Amino acid sequence: MINKNRGIATIITIGDELLIGQTIDTNSSWMGVELNKAGFQIKRRVAVGDTWNDIWQALDSESADANIILITGGLGPTADDITKPLLCEYFGGQLVVDQKAHDNVVDIFTKKLSRPLLERNLKQAEVPDNCMVIQNKRGTAPGMIFEKDGKIFVSMPGVPHEMKGMMADDVIPMLINKFGSGKVVHKTLLTAGIGESFLAETLTGFENTLPEQIKLAYLPSYGMVRLRLTTIHEEMESEIENRFEDLKTLVSTYLVTDRDQTMQEAVAASLLANRKTLAIAESCTGGYIAHLMTAIAGSSQYFLGGVVSYSNELKSSLLGVPMDTIQIFGAVSTQTAEKMAEGLRLRTGADYCLATSGIMGPSGGSDSKPVGFVCVGLSTAEKTISTTLQFRFDRMRNIELTAIHALDFLRKNMG
Amino acid sequence: MINKNRGIATIITIGDELLIGQTIDTNSSWMGVELNKAGFQIKRRVAVGDTWNDIWQALDSESADANIILITGGLGPTADDITKPLLCEYFGGQLVVDQKAHDNVVDIFTKKLSRPLLERNLKQAEVPDNCMVIQNKRGTAPGMIFEKDGKIFVSMPGVPHEMKGMMADDVIPMLINKFGSGKVVHKTLLTAGIGESFLAETLTGFENTLPEQIKLAYLPSYGMVRLRLTTIHEEMESEIENRFEDLKTLVSTYLVTDRDQTMQEAVAASLLANRKTLAIAESCTGGYIAHLMTAIAGSSQYFLGGVVSYSNELKSSLLGVPMDTIQIFGAVSTQTAEKMAEGLRLRTGADYCLATSGIMGPSGGSDSKPVGFVCVGLSTAEKTISTTLQFRFDRMRNIELTAIHALDFLRKNMG
Repeated sequence: MINKNRGIATIITIGDELLIGQTIDTNSSWMGVELNKAGFQIKRRVAVGDTWNDIWQALDSESADANIILITGGLGPTADDITKPLLCEYFGGQLVVDQKAHDNVVDIFTKKLSRPLLERNLKQAEVPDNCMVIQNKRGTAPGMIFEKDGKIFVSMPGVPHEMKGMMADDVIPMLINKFGSGKVVHKTLLTAGIGESFLAETLTGFENTLPEQIKLAYLPSYGMVRLRLTTIHEEMESEIENRFEDLKTLVSTYLVTDRDQTMQEAVAASLLANRKTLAIAESCTGGYIAHLMTAIAGSSQYFLGGVVSYSNELKSSLLGVPMDTIQIFGAVSTQTAEKMAEGLRLRTGADYCLATSGIMGPSGGSDSKPVGFVCVGLSTAEKTISTTLQFRFDRMRNIELTAIHALDFLRKNMG
Repeated sequence: MINKNRGIATIITIGDELLIGQTIDTNSSWMGVELNKAGFQIKRRVAVGDTWNDIWQALDSESADANIILITGGLGPTADDITKPLLCEYFGGQLVVDQKAHDNVVDIFTKKLSRPLLERNLKQAEVPDNCMVIQNKRGTAPGMIFEKDGKIFVSMPGVPHEMKGMMADDVIPMLINKFGSGKVVHKTLLTAGIGESFLAETLTGFENTLPEQIKLAYLPSYGMVRLRLTTIHEEMESEIENRFEDLKTLVSTYLVTDRDQTMQEAVAASLLANRKTLAIAESCTGGYIAHLMTAIAGSSQYFLGGVVSYSNELKSSLLGVPMDTIQIFGAVSTQTAEKMAEGLRLRTGADYCLATSGIMGPSGGSDSKPVGFVCVGLSTAEKTISTTLQFRFDRMRNIELTAIHALDFLRKNMG
């Protein structure tokens, strides 16, 4: 049942590559975030292949349950794309050239790409005559808006930055204009160092007294648990704030941040607020922590840099870890991790230097230091300390978990 | 219509966090890859929220079009999980304690976690009495297999490594046993340096003579285009090999690898085959290239390490870039990128040293060096060279594109 006062959205992504896992669908996650922010409920997400009947059926089934149907993918210049002719037939239109879209294609090829323009590029400017065209400021394939029985269908290219631009510039404003912006309030905090079930046990009393219009969700990931309170009821706006304060108090021991931030964003905010700098000496995480930090815009304000000392020689030559330390205690040891942190701190002048050394797998483990064993070192002007961790997952997950736990070790010791 | 000779699969993922984009659904991509490898066709993927009716409806609609329905998510120990009671009702069973699952939960808590066991953890051992239980070797929530009208429904936890373990150990073997393993043949190659439409133009003749049982797909990502030939027709097995050889010849100028590899895997394979070593000096990519290389198992054989020289001081102190070079030409210049590469190569003894310096945005650009402008340096024993790139996307995409193009620059100059 569709609530007529509010937009209920569904997302259709098109492409065989999505079904067979050759591409991870990040588009629909991003669209989910934006729709949610704008106050639209998201009913479902569906991915179908480049198959006429499957796309047709998805249009039927999704429009039965929602009044906003967002579609991405299937609009590229190559022959495996069948979405546009299908939409044309589905809505009973004829393909015609859109002059603005045509000019845009010509412009991109002649001015920006300086490449000869091909017939198949010009075909991108063809659109069904019964749609409203969304001009593509970032690429050649235009977006299309159809309306049928009061429901809005929007077809956008699958190239992420093109789709994102159209959503921000055209689609979200159009949807708000059409359906109004019902409000969804989320309050989110992040905990680390406590399992989902223990957290739930701690919060039994809290949950039992929570008004039914406010929903509590547990979102575990990378050894952390995100807690989210949600309401779609406007009269609950002040109540959800009160409950969120209660929640913060209840989990205070494990609280990383009371904002919808990642661990690295929380660390970055803290460094910035305290005007401190960070450098990172990574062995087992191989640059992943530096990547997490530098993916944040403006990180050069507090992140000086790092060393990925994968080989023992580099631990010694670039970080000054004594070869003796490596030989006596091993490359994966708290002693080596501490020397790495200390060495890089002295070489960079950073306020904090974090170091990781461990065995990420699948091979390289021993009885005393099995796969997933990690040493984390931290050096500051006052002290150099370390801790050990043990994970039991695959290589990528061990790297991710090490990064998050190392950053949490830093966060707790930043005081 | 279901082809009775072959398993047709659909994937249902459950969780509000998927719809509002708080979690990116990597599970169903992974499942798609594995199902596809085992020869099952994937019809559709659906994500629904933690809502009784939506889950119920998804079970109805997905089982109408497929005979293998794989479900992940909604099995955690906390109260926002409703999947298990729903499955119990959907298939008309009663919740009972599974002794093995119970012993597993007790074992994990007492031996592995050394934590007190809570009532809600023990509840995870409850399963509908009409399912076949999949024991969880990596966590507490068991998987469940239901059969109804010849269709197989499998419910698995949403924790990726738990789901992956169950799929590999139990689900895929069971499905092959039940449905046989119809064969899907994919042949994939990767190109770089040519746009999708130009590639399509080059391949017009090839496409026109392709038998209709073989499908060609264009999969663009990060400035590269992956080309995939697919057939589900056994009699086409040798024909697809021939066509793939033709395809390789046609795109030879742009060919990165004729395997289903990433750019970094292709570079790694080449380093390994030629017994060469690599080190990376990263400014604007901030550790991302090192991360891409070290995410590959066994990378310590050819990857020595790197320096993330985010600040100018570190470019000088850790890499030996003359401050003069930075002052005269700027930190983002081919001169600095070359000095970074050369400096790190001399300090590490690597055969190849790659360096990046650029402006990833959103701020920091100027008229002569706008956001997205990147210099890449490469130093070998014989020569030190550089190139410049210009991207026009957001920070994360600029970082990803720089990494891929820098690795391609290395690959082309590995000689």
